[in-house]
Amino acid sequence: MNQKLQEYARLLVEVGINIQKGQRLIIACPVDHAPFARLCASIAYEKGCKEVIMNWSDDELTRKKYLMADDSVFDSVPEWLVRFYTDYSKEKAGFLHLVSTDPENLLGVDADRILRSHKSQGEALKEYREIRNKNINPWSIGALASEKWAKLVFPKLEPEKAVEALWEKIFMAVRVKGDGTAIEAWRAHSKKLRGRMKILNDYNFKSLHYKNGLGTDLIVELAHDHVWEAGGDTTADGQFYMPNMPTEEIFTANKRDGINGVVYASMPLCRDGNVIEGLRFEIKDGKIVKATADKGEGILKNAISVDEGASYFGEVALVPFDSPISNSKTLFYSTLYDENASCHFAFGRAYPTTVKGGIGMSKEQLKEAGLNDSITHVDFMVGTSDLSIVGLTHDGREVPVFVEGNFAF
Amino acid sequence: MNQKLQEYARLLVEVGINIQKGQRLIIACPVDHAPFARLCASIAYEKGCKEVIMNWSDDELTRKKYLMADDSVFDSVPEWLVRFYTDYSKEKAGFLHLVSTDPENLLGVDADRILRSHKSQGEALKEYREIRNKNINPWSIGALASEKWAKLVFPKLEPEKAVEALWEKIFMAVRVKGDGTAIEAWRAHSKKLRGRMKILNDYNFKSLHYKNGLGTDLIVELAHDHVWEAGGDTTADGQFYMPNMPTEEIFTANKRDGINGVVYASMPLCRDGNVIEGLRFEIKDGKIVKATADKGEGILKNAISVDEGASYFGEVALVPFDSPISNSKTLFYSTLYDENASCHFAFGRAYPTTVKGGIGMSKEQLKEAGLNDSITHVDFMVGTSDLSIVGLTHDGREVPVFVEGNFAF
Repeated sequence: MNQKLQEYARLLVEVGINIQKGQRLIIACPVDHAPFARLCASIAYEKGCKEVIMNWSDDELTRKKYLMADDSVFDSVPEWLVRFYTDYSKEKAGFLHLVSTDPENLLGVDADRILRSHKSQGEALKEYREIRNKNINPWSIGALASEKWAKLVFPKLEPEKAVEALWEKIFMAVRVKGDGTAIEAWRAHSKKLRGRMKILNDYNFKSLHYKNGLGTDLIVELAHDHVWEAGGDTTADGQFYMPNMPTEEIFTANKRDGINGVVYASMPLCRDGNVIEGLRFEIKDGKIVKATADKGEGILKNAISVDEGASYFGEVALVPFDSPISNSKTLFYSTLYDENASCHFAFGRAYPTTVKGGIGMSKEQLKEAGLNDSITHVDFMVGTSDLSIVGLTHDGREVPVFVEGNFAF
Repeated sequence: MNQKLQEYARLLVEVGINIQKGQRLIIACPVDHAPFARLCASIAYEKGCKEVIMNWSDDELTRKKYLMADDSVFDSVPEWLVRFYTDYSKEKAGFLHLVSTDPENLLGVDADRILRSHKSQGEALKEYREIRNKNINPWSIGALASEKWAKLVFPKLEPEKAVEALWEKIFMAVRVKGDGTAIEAWRAHSKKLRGRMKILNDYNFKSLHYKNGLGTDLIVELAHDHVWEAGGDTTADGQFYMPNMPTEEIFTANKRDGINGVVYASMPLCRDGNVIEGLRFEIKDGKIVKATADKGEGILKNAISVDEGASYFGEVALVPFDSPISNSKTLFYSTLYDENASCHFAFGRAYPTTVKGGIGMSKEQLKEAGLNDSITHVDFMVGTSDLSIVGLTHDGREVPVFVEGNFAF
């Protein structure tokens, strides 16, 4: 176990962030996972990291705040927090996010408080977001098994066994065996993803047509100069990093107003500590004109109304139904894991990296290139075993992209 | 145990801070003690606290930073940290400091890095210190038992037993029995301290003459308009609070240049994670002209040279040799506890509250009133069972203040 934790920490710092000599590393971590953060810090310092800065969090205190704090605190963000994110992003620090949030942590909390909190953060951190869009900060997300999360994933196991089982799933997904081969395995995996990414970029599809037995029937135009990305990203200064650990997706940007039809989520969506089930969107010229859910509909409606861009899509991602996380047949209640088990979309902000020359572009230029903007970005899963996706090229050819849930090539 | 922890948390929040409706509470806490911080947060919210803000720390990461970070980071303080302290102090927030630092945490660390770190913090947080000097923020310090600290205090016990024993010592010192009587007991204790404080204020001594068998022979002039304080303080807005839990001391300000003679520490001094033993100062016209120690002399010399004021005294405190913490015959390696077991002085900054009208005074006026200024304030213990202190009044009367280590009245 200790060997595996050590190897996982090394993977996150050396491959996820690829920390450079003289670079600061900001580690966001729940207080209950301090020992793992200490492992990451030691490895970062060994690689010449300038300084490790901790950004601690605590689920219980977050929940208490939403339930008991004065109502006014959800409408503003303190200046120190703005400076924290803005200044470290400006100086090209790395951002490692260690997450183990109980997906149901905010259950029962006033949805309006959550919405206002997101809105005020979105506004206060505008400059920070603009810097992050320049892709000068390597970043990565890695999950840590916690008791509450494990209980949700393995409700029939004893707490201790559930945590163990969840750690094993995590190690499997990030290819950590405890024998020192994880970094090599990740490089091979990244290479394979980037091979398929190249094929998709060569096709340069005009649109994708999604269909499955759930009822999804959706035509998704891609941004004109879209670029498919996968298996890692490179900062403007040439630092290669791995934004998500694990990652199985190949993703790009849709054309903001180019989506029409109906789409059903194939898995629950965890948002703000609430679980949304049976999500269904009707979309016309890119805009979500009808949003329903069997459970958590209020949370869903809030999520797509934080600003105008929240009701448009910003990301199209392809993941084979037959892939490691998907094959584990486990619902993780965690976007980081579940999005890598399934084809998905995101409503909200598009990634500037998913359009040619997007990194140097102004907000207006990105908009002209067809990309959506928003303070939010929320993934939801649509992949099923019977999903078919047909690509349409600019010269009118129809090309099967997904057949029965998996890549056709 | 849970009952006692709950009662201790309540004591710190309701008596230590005396949190008011609509007031923010900043809790500084080591990450390993998150459960106790959560208890404090719940109690604060129940009393109408506007928002609890956590200021987490971690001994191990602090040590790693001092050992492994880039040398440049010790010469600057990030703007976000300055804003954090300055903005919350401005808005009259309460500051609760939960401490469990391993006193030997920084053993072997480059003393120059520690010195530069203190200096740059001292300079960057100048505005914060000025606000704090206005006494608009209720604050309190409470200790939490940790394994490393407990091992130092009880080296012969098994780790788990040592932690238990340390908790029991803490509960004893803060008068927590787990039966709900702690708050009442504290109010009675505070009243008793304030009775003696009144006697000392009525005498209005010109100077105190310290003598004991260790070799201490020191004449300490008090600031002309000095005020003795004890058992709690009141903010400028009238919020009564208890700066230290426990507190047994009655303290005031010496005249900056009015100390002459020799003084020996009677207990080790823990500073920057190092233990200084056998401390001895020779003082002429207030200035420490010679500083020696049997162990940690380098750390001591650094501590008194962070700025000019660091080599002058700023506090004179009286604690009977026969008092609860002293009687426990335990060396806590913690200033919070050890200072309340023994008469002590501090080198560095004086408290503006310890001179008449000091709160409203400018830096220059405080200096004129005879008070020392510095970015630092370090207590060291001088009480012994044979300590005698003789007070000299302005009309030339000699009054015994301490006889054989205890108050003469």
